Amino acid sequence: MRIYDIIHKKRHSQSLSKEEIDFFVKEYTKGNIPDYQASALCMAICCNGMTDEECFNLTDSMMHSGDIIDLSSLPYTADKHSTGGVGDLTSLIVTPILATLGLSVAKMSGRGLGHTGGTIDKLESIPGFRTSLSAEEFMEQVKRIGLCVIGQTENLAPADKKLYALRDVTATIDSIPLIASSIMSKKLAAGTHNIVLDVKYGSGAFISDPDEAVKLANTMVKIGRMMGKNVCAVVTSMAYPLGRKIGNSLEIIEATEILRCEDRGDARTVSVELASILLSITKGIDMEEAVRLVNDSLDSGKAYRKFLEWIEAQGGDSVLVDKGELCIADFTLEVEAEKDGYIYNADTEGIGMASCILGAGRTVKEEQPDLSAGLILNVSLGDKVKKGQSIAKLFSSSPEKLIPASEKLKASIMISEHRPETLPPLIYKKIF
Amino acid sequence: MRIYDIIHKKRHSQSLSKEEIDFFVKEYTKGNIPDYQASALCMAICCNGMTDEECFNLTDSMMHSGDIIDLSSLPYTADKHSTGGVGDLTSLIVTPILATLGLSVAKMSGRGLGHTGGTIDKLESIPGFRTSLSAEEFMEQVKRIGLCVIGQTENLAPADKKLYALRDVTATIDSIPLIASSIMSKKLAAGTHNIVLDVKYGSGAFISDPDEAVKLANTMVKIGRMMGKNVCAVVTSMAYPLGRKIGNSLEIIEATEILRCEDRGDARTVSVELASILLSITKGIDMEEAVRLVNDSLDSGKAYRKFLEWIEAQGGDSVLVDKGELCIADFTLEVEAEKDGYIYNADTEGIGMASCILGAGRTVKEEQPDLSAGLILNVSLGDKVKKGQSIAKLFSSSPEKLIPASEKLKASIMISEHRPETLPPLIYKKIF
Repeated sequence: MRIYDIIHKKRHSQSLSKEEIDFFVKEYTKGNIPDYQASALCMAICCNGMTDEECFNLTDSMMHSGDIIDLSSLPYTADKHSTGGVGDLTSLIVTPILATLGLSVAKMSGRGLGHTGGTIDKLESIPGFRTSLSAEEFMEQVKRIGLCVIGQTENLAPADKKLYALRDVTATIDSIPLIASSIMSKKLAAGTHNIVLDVKYGSGAFISDPDEAVKLANTMVKIGRMMGKNVCAVVTSMAYPLGRKIGNSLEIIEATEILRCEDRGDARTVSVELASILLSITKGIDMEEAVRLVNDSLDSGKAYRKFLEWIEAQGGDSVLVDKGELCIADFTLEVEAEKDGYIYNADTEGIGMASCILGAGRTVKEEQPDLSAGLILNVSLGDKVKKGQSIAKLFSSSPEKLIPASEKLKASIMISEHRPETLPPLIYKKIF
Repeated sequence: MRIYDIIHKKRHSQSLSKEEIDFFVKEYTKGNIPDYQASALCMAICCNGMTDEECFNLTDSMMHSGDIIDLSSLPYTADKHSTGGVGDLTSLIVTPILATLGLSVAKMSGRGLGHTGGTIDKLESIPGFRTSLSAEEFMEQVKRIGLCVIGQTENLAPADKKLYALRDVTATIDSIPLIASSIMSKKLAAGTHNIVLDVKYGSGAFISDPDEAVKLANTMVKIGRMMGKNVCAVVTSMAYPLGRKIGNSLEIIEATEILRCEDRGDARTVSVELASILLSITKGIDMEEAVRLVNDSLDSGKAYRKFLEWIEAQGGDSVLVDKGELCIADFTLEVEAEKDGYIYNADTEGIGMASCILGAGRTVKEEQPDLSAGLILNVSLGDKVKKGQSIAKLFSSSPEKLIPASEKLKASIMISEHRPETLPPLIYKKIF
């Protein structure tokens, strides 16, 4: 088998066999196929697509390029995965809820990159919180309290890791088969049986068109089901940040507010939706009952107590979290509306970048973000604002970052004299 | 400017600006853009195409990446270029004809690769023939006898050289804009004003479909004209080898036979066509008159005498050539028809590969071919053959190569009980 022939086939829109895909993934991971051939193949896939079968085979090969986590000793394993966004803190809400309802959440999460945040960074803003545990500690904690979240282990789908780094510099990221197989190879290697995918659309997601997001969601659901897993998806809006607080410790604070039922905004709505679907498919109960149980977990305070228990279990200072005393950056700036009008539109990626400028994010993988930096939005899409009213408050440890971030933020929020006629639906589509 | 954005644009079928193309060519040639980004861009071009303007700009950038030969001191500069094939010896016929008619042929030729032959290898089968001359020797010889053919100088379109080597291993060769700009960048840098392109179609060409070949021809003609050159093209058949002798010294022998008017087959027909078009466009005389003058050059023996003069001028042993005593490999094998029938079809690339197996060609650039090896075809498309009749004679310096080559040859020539209804037209289309 020759990689040349495989590239040639895909360049001419032919389907690749399981053996060809497996050859590519294995030999590329071993370093026997040079980057220049792999990038040509990725571009041919971007341009000419893949069938569902090819996509499944690519996922399968990448998934088997490293460790496959065995969670078979755990009952009702369940996990959610988001394609990434701004102010997307639902993992912090959904996981303790599920743990109170008898599900096992043995979760591996990622770090933030660019404008998107990552759960591991957020958790590390809690003093003492350990995101690297041994396999034994990980399993033991899930068995004990129903929940553990750690960073991705080194050898989880290493083929995807290598390929993603190449795609990132060769403009071959935005391809549904490549995105779907990348996400699913890691998700499936992580061993959970019941999965709900939160596929984001809009200006803060890497897919802006909701129908494209639906296509991606459908592809991932198909892959998961072909692999024998119980997978559903929800396509939700990233036309505006999901939570109103953006930044690492800020999002832990907002999670606390939601879990205490002090905040009943969009982030709670999406969290309840995701948790209910997972509960419904995992335990086989109907959706209405699942929604009732999930709301009850929140409203009774059980989910919040589980949240504190979880922080404690992973070494975090739960007292500090409970008191709302996490470290927030010292230097602040209120960003004011420059005219009267309505919040008409937002460049959510731009808002995420403003938080990144404040120090909360990474522009390259190696950077260590300032976990205390970020911003709080005081307005939502469609809100009426008056000139001079605060639309956001910025937090940074470096005062010189405040002005550039405020410029970025102002450029990302469009105020118009017209009220927007419709708002993008928060939950666009559910794929059961 | 970032190469990432350039790749991203082309991946989304957008046109690249002159500045973007120039940036890519310059920085890639300098080594500032890695191969994996260049191959991704090439694949995006293969899949999503280029406009005529982009194609012109790519040609222009690659042409200016190295030396531009100045032939302005020569009158009536004329050159032909073939896209490559098997038994394609027209350069050996056309160039002496043109030199007898007052045109200046200052030609740079290539070497063979894979199944296709190269004029430089063929000329080097003549003892003493020098294909590397100084620029002064080159110009002086053209001025003196109207004709000189040398190998491509190192610094002719080096961007194309580097990019072609990458395309060769990333399945990004067969793209009309990339082929057209590759050929034209070298051809235009070589400085000739009047050019006829012989674009091959069929099983021995890298484009099999004649209408695709017409597209390539049209693209190259457009590029040449945008560059202010006088360019025409002819699309001719490579559904079967053009000459009946394939191999280096064998093709010099066949050229001698054609120039002596002992052979009036397809190779003469195409050579007369190419020479006549070049004479017509270079001197502005009508085609009928040009055909008459070209036939007269052949029939009068002038072209043959010029051929011998040319060999002599470049240090070759013209007496040996005249006597037909060039070295032919010692070991031979007659390949016999395995059944009665008609020569219905041929895989011309396969026939070229049979010659390559005999030692006449290169599978990789670094190889030195056996200039005395090759084969003589005794049949043409449509011929009636009897079982046991010789269809070809093979020549090799290594007897063990004869059987594998005969197997390849037999697999490449299809004998059927049916006579083919039509034969592919030798000259499919002329683009004036």
